[in-house]
Amino acid sequence: MERAGLVEEYLDRYLPPESAPPATLSRAVRYSLFAGGKRLRPALVLGSAEAVGGSIEDALPAAAAFEMIHTYSLIHDDLPSMDDDSLRRGRPTSHVVFGEAIAILAGDALQSHAFAVLADPPSPCRVPAERRLRAVAELARAAGVSGMVGGQVLDLESEGQSVDAAALERIHRHKTGALIRAAARVGAIVGGANEDELERLTRFGEEAGLGFQIVDDILDVEGSDETLGKSAGKDAKAGKATYPLVHGIGEARKKAEELLASALSRLEPFGPAGRPLALLAEQMIRRRS
Amino acid sequence: MERAGLVEEYLDRYLPPESAPPATLSRAVRYSLFAGGKRLRPALVLGSAEAVGGSIEDALPAAAAFEMIHTYSLIHDDLPSMDDDSLRRGRPTSHVVFGEAIAILAGDALQSHAFAVLADPPSPCRVPAERRLRAVAELARAAGVSGMVGGQVLDLESEGQSVDAAALERIHRHKTGALIRAAARVGAIVGGANEDELERLTRFGEEAGLGFQIVDDILDVEGSDETLGKSAGKDAKAGKATYPLVHGIGEARKKAEELLASALSRLEPFGPAGRPLALLAEQMIRRRS
Repeated sequence: MERAGLVEEYLDRYLPPESAPPATLSRAVRYSLFAGGKRLRPALVLGSAEAVGGSIEDALPAAAAFEMIHTYSLIHDDLPSMDDDSLRRGRPTSHVVFGEAIAILAGDALQSHAFAVLADPPSPCRVPAERRLRAVAELARAAGVSGMVGGQVLDLESEGQSVDAAALERIHRHKTGALIRAAARVGAIVGGANEDELERLTRFGEEAGLGFQIVDDILDVEGSDETLGKSAGKDAKAGKATYPLVHGIGEARKKAEELLASALSRLEPFGPAGRPLALLAEQMIRRRS
Repeated sequence: MERAGLVEEYLDRYLPPESAPPATLSRAVRYSLFAGGKRLRPALVLGSAEAVGGSIEDALPAAAAFEMIHTYSLIHDDLPSMDDDSLRRGRPTSHVVFGEAIAILAGDALQSHAFAVLADPPSPCRVPAERRLRAVAELARAAGVSGMVGGQVLDLESEGQSVDAAALERIHRHKTGALIRAAARVGAIVGGANEDELERLTRFGEEAGLGFQIVDDILDVEGSDETLGKSAGKDAKAGKATYPLVHGIGEARKKAEELLASALSRLEPFGPAGRPLALLAEQMIRRRS
């Protein structure tokens, strides 16, 4: 089965069925998790594990955990008190469909689930306990105050403010960068990387992640609601700092290409085992939607 | 130092200082965590570890993690879209002070932090990786769909509905019971319990937890805002099912005493090592506020 299919199957098998009590919550969790996401973070986990000679199957719990954390953050970011967005991946957002209380709780439950699946996967996992514990710590740190949640706060605080290049990069590095970086790291850790390999894949994750975010900002300026599946131009409307806003579109494109080239160079020592990760980085940065 | 003091010190040392960026988030996290909570769940973790001959010091990360999960759930439960409460432990709730967005994110960050401290405590921890991984899984399950978050959904759905005794017990068992039960279990696990000890402390946690909740409901009926430090009578106002409402106050008191007696009997084989846990159960169920 293809990697993406494996992740879908794994997420489906791990989650409570839609009818599991309380049914509203199970439905809300599945609604957001199976909304046609790109599964970028799981692909990074699997690709990193593969690059260092680890097994894809043993990396699946970590891959699923990252998608759960990412999905929970989208649900909460879309809430009326945050970005107040009613459209996500082409469908009404969770709070529009289920109400605010259930949307908040579905996000909360997904965060718990992520750590449950990482610590105690439903099928046997041959990754030693030490490494899995380290994966839990990496994911938790990347999600918390000094990572994703901290970045969302910086982002909210920057609305309507004039933001310079350094402040903008700090927002990106926390809000989306920390989790993407951690996905590359955790794949490497569960796959059994040595310290040098871990360091390379960390840099790869940082560069691919920042490139991805810059392209996101470019697409927000250039795209339409239909191609994006979310509200286009919303960053500019919200007065949010974005890379193309601060540096201009041409400079933003150039920076993304430079980051891709550097990320790819990190993979050279892995030879053919690094190929899936290289393709992934190209998709992340050269995408049109 | 006393147990409670150890937990306070540990929480303080582990959390980012109030000035750590983003400062609003760090302040909000500390505001709710240091609001004079009873530290019941940490005390259960430490007491259980001690009962089975484990070290208190090695159980501190787990104790702190439970308090973080509990505090995050209070912040989210108080939100306008949930219980809409403006008073908690005698102080304005998080969203009143910091706004809804920051309150949601402070809760989210506290959940992440709980798993970070459990998986990678700031000071050396002699508990083997296998046990700590099991603790992560126990905490995550107790917090998620089939535990605390599921219980909050059941509770919200029961508002204004007529709720029978079985439905009421199901709400309690999930919403508050799951985390209290898990605190007793995780203390036992990190303390090195055998299966028989773990089973006894699980029952202890279930009984003490249900007794605690029943007393909570009694105090909500009888108490005032001043003695409770939160809005009294709010359950009845919200049309919420509570134990005294369904069974009457006299029956509720009797049930709480029966649960206490049964919980205490579970501790007998532990001898003097079980004494702190016995005192704790008495405090939980015979309290006046």
